[in-house]
Amino acid sequence: MKILIIGAAGMVGQKLIARLLADGGLGGRAVSSMMLYDIVTPGTPDALWPVETSAGDLSDPGEAERLVADRPDVIFHLAAIVSGEAETDFDKGYRINLQGTHHLFEAVRAQGYMPRLVFASSIAVFGAPFPEKIGDEFLSAPLSSYGTQKACCELLLSDYSRKGFFDGLSVRLPTVVVRPGRPNKAASGFFSNILREPLAGKEALLPVSRDVRHWMVSPRTAAGFLVHAATLDTKKIGPRRALTMPGVSVTVGEMIEALDRVSGEKRSTLIRDEADELVNRMVTGWPRDFDAERATELGFVPDSSIDEIIRIHIDEEMGGQLG
Amino acid sequence: MKILIIGAAGMVGQKLIARLLADGGLGGRAVSSMMLYDIVTPGTPDALWPVETSAGDLSDPGEAERLVADRPDVIFHLAAIVSGEAETDFDKGYRINLQGTHHLFEAVRAQGYMPRLVFASSIAVFGAPFPEKIGDEFLSAPLSSYGTQKACCELLLSDYSRKGFFDGLSVRLPTVVVRPGRPNKAASGFFSNILREPLAGKEALLPVSRDVRHWMVSPRTAAGFLVHAATLDTKKIGPRRALTMPGVSVTVGEMIEALDRVSGEKRSTLIRDEADELVNRMVTGWPRDFDAERATELGFVPDSSIDEIIRIHIDEEMGGQLG
Repeated sequence: MKILIIGAAGMVGQKLIARLLADGGLGGRAVSSMMLYDIVTPGTPDALWPVETSAGDLSDPGEAERLVADRPDVIFHLAAIVSGEAETDFDKGYRINLQGTHHLFEAVRAQGYMPRLVFASSIAVFGAPFPEKIGDEFLSAPLSSYGTQKACCELLLSDYSRKGFFDGLSVRLPTVVVRPGRPNKAASGFFSNILREPLAGKEALLPVSRDVRHWMVSPRTAAGFLVHAATLDTKKIGPRRALTMPGVSVTVGEMIEALDRVSGEKRSTLIRDEADELVNRMVTGWPRDFDAERATELGFVPDSSIDEIIRIHIDEEMGGQLG
Repeated sequence: MKILIIGAAGMVGQKLIARLLADGGLGGRAVSSMMLYDIVTPGTPDALWPVETSAGDLSDPGEAERLVADRPDVIFHLAAIVSGEAETDFDKGYRINLQGTHHLFEAVRAQGYMPRLVFASSIAVFGAPFPEKIGDEFLSAPLSSYGTQKACCELLLSDYSRKGFFDGLSVRLPTVVVRPGRPNKAASGFFSNILREPLAGKEALLPVSRDVRHWMVSPRTAAGFLVHAATLDTKKIGPRRALTMPGVSVTVGEMIEALDRVSGEKRSTLIRDEADELVNRMVTGWPRDFDAERATELGFVPDSSIDEIIRIHIDEEMGGQLG
């Protein structure tokens, strides 16, 4: 089985690669080769199978064609300009997130074969007002260019799948928490900062009020969703190929309580409230909770709690030791 | 006020032009000039204001830029490859319906002004399964490439409007009945055929069962929706710029009863049942009924009944006389 990962240098891409290496294959099947692609050349992991790496801009002419020329059996498309940057650089967001993805779909179609294509979408396809719990039949009415681009790609993916050009699945990821490493340009970064920094003994700024509720997944579980999406029987899914992933719905206040509980220390004293008007305004338009019935029935399993999400971070990123 | 109508040679475009001429303006405001554009040169109507006509393909480079160079105050975008053709010619459908529309939006943005932009969308953005009545918060899950293209354009229009690049509104038209003239390639054509042909004394084929229910609007009322969308106060609308228009929900059986009732004759004897497997399969995926609450609150008024829809056809297309 040949695997192509677009956006392989990103956080979720790296977690996915680690999972494939740990599993020694994909869903019990052997991997014959793996192509890792991103805007910067991804690192070459130590794998049991040949790994090729490559850098480029998916929206450049000929780039998508080159990537699928070898007919990968499974394509993970995780590359995107993140929400904050897509909002400030309108052209870049549409070029990469919409046109780049559409180019990829066209390139696969031109090859005339039937790979599994897993597209990383986002709960940013939803915008307020919404019910306390968003169900699987609720409309996509994004309040950001990023969400708009993801929603359009979901529609394209369902249509291309319906027409038999590939076997696609859009996986709407909850906000990934705790993101390791440095903050990126995503406006939702503070959800990770308020856990990662205090766990490392550092101060973190909290730009919103403690009653803000949001929908989260650990990096490990997000990678697991992608693997499951690549291997499940799509005959059970029908034509609606965008699935809201199950997650953990917690308030910022509950996150902070869990931080102290899991760390066993008053690490929350390292969190300093500093209201940010822009982030506060954006947050009011973000989903708080979902009823992810379809994905749950299809076997996608969320983290059990925010405590587990924090433990996964300490385990995977900190060698089990607080900083 | 300068008006641009893209898709002016089509049926709804012609009805819109007739309405503007009859009103002597748009929403009580004087029209200073009108540009009519389509893939074939539209006829030049006898208007009180200067009319320019032009033909071309909106998806050709430079075409959209040329059309908006003069900064029209109101842009009606009605041009589309219809559902049947978009399904059989995948490339053409995406090129015209998605890329052409996106080019138009980009050209308006590049001009850096703020016209009203009214986009003719369709209830084809919805696909089965759905509730008996579809509400304003129900997801767009189209089952055709045409519906996918319209749904993507709706998302783009809302995002471009949110960013302040124009003041847009997507008007989801019910199926327009009775379409005058010759059938087009739309798979929904039979809804018009079974009324128009018997009213003219001709035979019509009915490819589906009489309990099929659907959502309809007269050409006159559809043109009225576009005028209302061009003139209403968009401050009342918020960021969700796609509105399902109110319509008349009737079964084919009820249409046939109304045909006899309005004509005063047993014209229904001219309808011959001839099942079409493809059309039957498509019809099961089409919406039957809506609760068009938002549009109704915004002052969009539907036809009162299928009887009125038939009377409008006899009045406008047949000079008040049956054939």
